Amino acid sequence: VGEVRSLANPALNIEASRGETLPSIFRRYRSDIGIALRKSLATDHLPVYQMLRYSMGWSSIHGNSSVITVGKALRPTLCLFACEATGGPASKALPAAVSLELIHNFSLIHDDIQDRDETRRHRPTLWAVWGEPKALVAGNTLRAIADISLWRLLDEDITFERAVTVVGLLTQAYLEMIEGQYLDLSFEGRPDVGLREYLGMISKKTGALIRCALNLGALIGSGDADTVRAFRECGRSLGYVFQIRDDMLGIWGDEQTTGKPVGADIRRKKNTLPVVYAMSQARGSDKELLESIYRKRSVGDEEVASVLDVLSKVKARDYAQSLASEHREKAIEALSGLELDPQTLQDMEGIARFLQLRQR
Amino acid sequence: VGEVRSLANPALNIEASRGETLPSIFRRYRSDIGIALRKSLATDHLPVYQMLRYSMGWSSIHGNSSVITVGKALRPTLCLFACEATGGPASKALPAAVSLELIHNFSLIHDDIQDRDETRRHRPTLWAVWGEPKALVAGNTLRAIADISLWRLLDEDITFERAVTVVGLLTQAYLEMIEGQYLDLSFEGRPDVGLREYLGMISKKTGALIRCALNLGALIGSGDADTVRAFRECGRSLGYVFQIRDDMLGIWGDEQTTGKPVGADIRRKKNTLPVVYAMSQARGSDKELLESIYRKRSVGDEEVASVLDVLSKVKARDYAQSLASEHREKAIEALSGLELDPQTLQDMEGIARFLQLRQR
Repeated sequence: VGEVRSLANPALNIEASRGETLPSIFRRYRSDIGIALRKSLATDHLPVYQMLRYSMGWSSIHGNSSVITVGKALRPTLCLFACEATGGPASKALPAAVSLELIHNFSLIHDDIQDRDETRRHRPTLWAVWGEPKALVAGNTLRAIADISLWRLLDEDITFERAVTVVGLLTQAYLEMIEGQYLDLSFEGRPDVGLREYLGMISKKTGALIRCALNLGALIGSGDADTVRAFRECGRSLGYVFQIRDDMLGIWGDEQTTGKPVGADIRRKKNTLPVVYAMSQARGSDKELLESIYRKRSVGDEEVASVLDVLSKVKARDYAQSLASEHREKAIEALSGLELDPQTLQDMEGIARFLQLRQR
Repeated sequence: VGEVRSLANPALNIEASRGETLPSIFRRYRSDIGIALRKSLATDHLPVYQMLRYSMGWSSIHGNSSVITVGKALRPTLCLFACEATGGPASKALPAAVSLELIHNFSLIHDDIQDRDETRRHRPTLWAVWGEPKALVAGNTLRAIADISLWRLLDEDITFERAVTVVGLLTQAYLEMIEGQYLDLSFEGRPDVGLREYLGMISKKTGALIRCALNLGALIGSGDADTVRAFRECGRSLGYVFQIRDDMLGIWGDEQTTGKPVGADIRRKKNTLPVVYAMSQARGSDKELLESIYRKRSVGDEEVASVLDVLSKVKARDYAQSLASEHREKAIEALSGLELDPQTLQDMEGIARFLQLRQR
């Protein structure tokens, strides 16, 4: 593993100096989001809610609240930001923001069961602590709480008709996310996943909720059809930026920062963008090598190093970075027809840049 | 097993002659429900929908539609019946009925994963055929389709406000069902589950959707608060009748009819009503025997026979049957304050009697 890391780290260190800090926009809403999220799970009539608070990173396994590890809250931040940018007070979109974050966390709980992942954010996953049946049910509970949280919209001076639209859009996004997860599973063990097919999958699996976050924010903030469409398109591109970066971190990320060893996604034979690209570009013995490794039952350090070698030959990293860059530009372009505050555009550029260069 | 069955069968045969036929009310709506359910899953853009059609009993593993095994459609039937009984055309409640049935089937898919059940209705379960990750995702897909189906309500001359209420009630019922599943899991391996605690669990796990079916039907059919409340209370009692009978069938049911061997739930150390009752009634060596068997890692034929013996001594079967009877009467009583068509009351009596005496 040591050798593998030394291959990957130099380039990352250069990016790190540019990309590590979370844009200030994330700080602006953090406290409101945190309070609203906690309210949504502030019930104690069943121990499953303790499991859920643990899964959100607010408490230890035994319910001690001193150990706290929270995520970036990307989706709720995007939702509140879009609401405020389009004329509404951010608070009006808070129920939708909470619902998005809970759905995201629900998907992580079930993902960890599916992938048999025992750690996330450096902590044991729910199923690893409480067993699979309870973790499965806890995930479903969180999904239901997400729906219920959304109804707080009706306290926010929003008509029943608009509320129905919001709920419908969120359900649709949820279905797309699940369909994307299904596609991802069906790609496993296939050496012939094309780039277009791959991008279609991540657009659903990861893109759906991110797109929905901006869509709902703009819908609640303004309701103007062109504005809503522009934010939705911006979200479509941001989704790609986010997932492409995720794929890069899954291969070349720093273990200390991501919590995953270098090459983690190769070891698990995941069809992520760099590998899909390499499969399409590699020729002769390189292609055979890739395919044979991806057909193996288990992949060791040596094979990980060989795959990294092929990725390097076909410049898979450069390809991924430039595709992410392209979508970052598209995300900003999508908003160019709107009359937005210059600060809003600057904030969105900051978010997009962060998503492209983040280290975790 | 032969000996065990001969202990249990005589009593069942007596009931069979009275209780086997499905009341005609189930036939009245069967075709409409079937068509609407199929429409909700009539998409083919992903193979996951083929999995779902299999799980509904409409097709074979390979998509051949000649093999059909459908359930009773209890929840949608109750929903349409309540709508019609309270003045609405049954069709108005069809979107809610579809949603209820899909949620029920979603819960079966996840239940089978949790319990590692390899067969249901004499066919391999979803996870047994397609593996656990895909089955988990398929369940979540069905849950999303259930939500989306519900929005067809808006085509049915229902206001946005009423639609929001319906969606809210269904979400609440869903959450209660999931909480009930959690409680059920948390009872496993506990020899001290009290009767009240047990009834609280089944009221959520099984009762929530049945209650909701009648609640939503009456809400869509009439909207009068007293009527809705009465149907809801009727549903509360029917939920008990249904689950108590289920518990009895899980112990004394006929293998050919239920698809489960006699004593199946004892072999799996399930805390069902007869066992919970026996734990509370048995004394001395009987109690010790029960507890020691329920503490074992695995339970064989001999232990199943010993437990059946204790159940027989404390008359657990009579107790269960009389409790079911009591709730059957309560279900009818709940409607007594309403001015319903005599045929409606008669139909409801038929449904309640069927739920108490059904063989599967």
